[in-house]
Amino acid sequence: MRARLIGVDWGTTSLRAHLIGAGGLALETRETNEGLRALGPGLFEPALARVVGDWRQAHGALPIVCSGMVGARTGWLEAPYVACPADASAIARGIVALDTASLGRVHFIPGVRQADDVMRGEETQIIGALVNGASDGLFVLPGTHSKWVHVDGATITRFTTIMTGDVYAALKGHTILAATTGAPDGDEGFARGLDMARALDGPGDVIARLFSLRVAALDGALTPQHSANVLSGLLIGAELRQMAQGAQRFTLIANDDLARRYEIAAQAMGLEARRASGHCAAQGQYVLAYAAELIAATVEDSE
Amino acid sequence: MRARLIGVDWGTTSLRAHLIGAGGLALETRETNEGLRALGPGLFEPALARVVGDWRQAHGALPIVCSGMVGARTGWLEAPYVACPADASAIARGIVALDTASLGRVHFIPGVRQADDVMRGEETQIIGALVNGASDGLFVLPGTHSKWVHVDGATITRFTTIMTGDVYAALKGHTILAATTGAPDGDEGFARGLDMARALDGPGDVIARLFSLRVAALDGALTPQHSANVLSGLLIGAELRQMAQGAQRFTLIANDDLARRYEIAAQAMGLEARRASGHCAAQGQYVLAYAAELIAATVEDSE
Repeated sequence: MRARLIGVDWGTTSLRAHLIGAGGLALETRETNEGLRALGPGLFEPALARVVGDWRQAHGALPIVCSGMVGARTGWLEAPYVACPADASAIARGIVALDTASLGRVHFIPGVRQADDVMRGEETQIIGALVNGASDGLFVLPGTHSKWVHVDGATITRFTTIMTGDVYAALKGHTILAATTGAPDGDEGFARGLDMARALDGPGDVIARLFSLRVAALDGALTPQHSANVLSGLLIGAELRQMAQGAQRFTLIANDDLARRYEIAAQAMGLEARRASGHCAAQGQYVLAYAAELIAATVEDSE
Repeated sequence: MRARLIGVDWGTTSLRAHLIGAGGLALETRETNEGLRALGPGLFEPALARVVGDWRQAHGALPIVCSGMVGARTGWLEAPYVACPADASAIARGIVALDTASLGRVHFIPGVRQADDVMRGEETQIIGALVNGASDGLFVLPGTHSKWVHVDGATITRFTTIMTGDVYAALKGHTILAATTGAPDGDEGFARGLDMARALDGPGDVIARLFSLRVAALDGALTPQHSANVLSGLLIGAELRQMAQGAQRFTLIANDDLARRYEIAAQAMGLEARRASGHCAAQGQYVLAYAAELIAATVEDSE
């Protein structure tokens, strides 16, 4: 299949590039840890050229479309946020372009914002998931900053960021729990954390339960590995109870490890979690590039 | 007034010594940052001798009584926990002693434990507050690891540790909030954090609200100093809502800065906070030393 587009999902800690064929199919994927945190002014273009330069030589001057934090004020080129509610057309209209010496024109997909929250990159994955056949409703993109996104038809209507992964790492590494909490190993303890989350009662209880992990560790009732899993279960369980209020099911967009944890947690909370299929980011980049007329429909697309 | 006792409140980050007269009155106080974290085996005795050695020379071989983490397994000498419920007599019976070359016999006050929680040092302050005239009921000792302690008559009946200060420092210093959160300056923003806490609804909401601080900071709506105060107000407010359930009032044992914050927070939550008076630790050390017959009643005491 002929390549049509280079899509780059470029965040704070990683750069993931897809060589994309007709219909949004990812033909090849490359990943580096050259995220925003490792780069600065003048370093974005050479970093991207190292990853995708040979694709452009081999497949002609393919358009390049970037999504994620690379389009933030602190990234390569700012693509100002599009206001929520937003659909693929609105997002595509917000794409901005930069002419580069080595890679031609590079396009940046904007994020979406509402009064009290912002996203960058997740909007592209959600659009990809919808094209891949996901139903509308509630989407969950778990991680350092989990996004819970409500979609009506093909429109992102509202969303909330909950910093579960960020809080987990801070509690595990930088409180008294650090002394008795190691790297998680297996799943043991995760269900116990979910049990604790199910029993939470009151607005500060998730914080009030933390010291019991310390006491259990001092008693030898909890190994450092299991302590990490209990903490993870407590926080993910609290996240699900808080964020799914009213919903019965949600669509997960996540890597396998995280998706599995959220599936276990969803089951414990009586919720149905369905994984989105395919490379959602690549599919979304393709749809948005097409909507912005950066690529044209081909015979292959309609076959 | 003649000195009767040397009382040492010795925790993780500081050592505070009181030269104590009849009735538990603190005649003189000295403080250093030589807490447990700065010390290790063989270093406790010389550290204490540097602080109180001249008191012993000037006032005769006064008994020395230590409370706090110095009596933990990781401290100088372990004074095993006394089981909750516990009163002054039970705690005094748990005092253990060590003969030292330079300071004579040094006594260690035990902590108190229940199945899922522990305290060390706070029990001594509460006993001191009670002797100083505090009513029984709910006591709050805020800080890195806030203790909420229920007292019936003169007996500690149950308690809960909530790691508010520890969580505050971890979120402020080691999450994405670190980039936009500075040292707190004044009180501006604290009331806003309390407002957020009052609006919390659901078991994970206190975590779900954090990202809004990031967005407000990016918008320029929140300075780094005020952001720290909002975070502090949110966490202290959540603590009060969670822990005061059912109570109308509590007694505060805290330094001035922290006591003021908790008083403001209590008022915002419709609770009455009363500060305990006097040097609670010194008073408690005196009462426990007396109960353990380390010092005798004198004519001065009954005057």
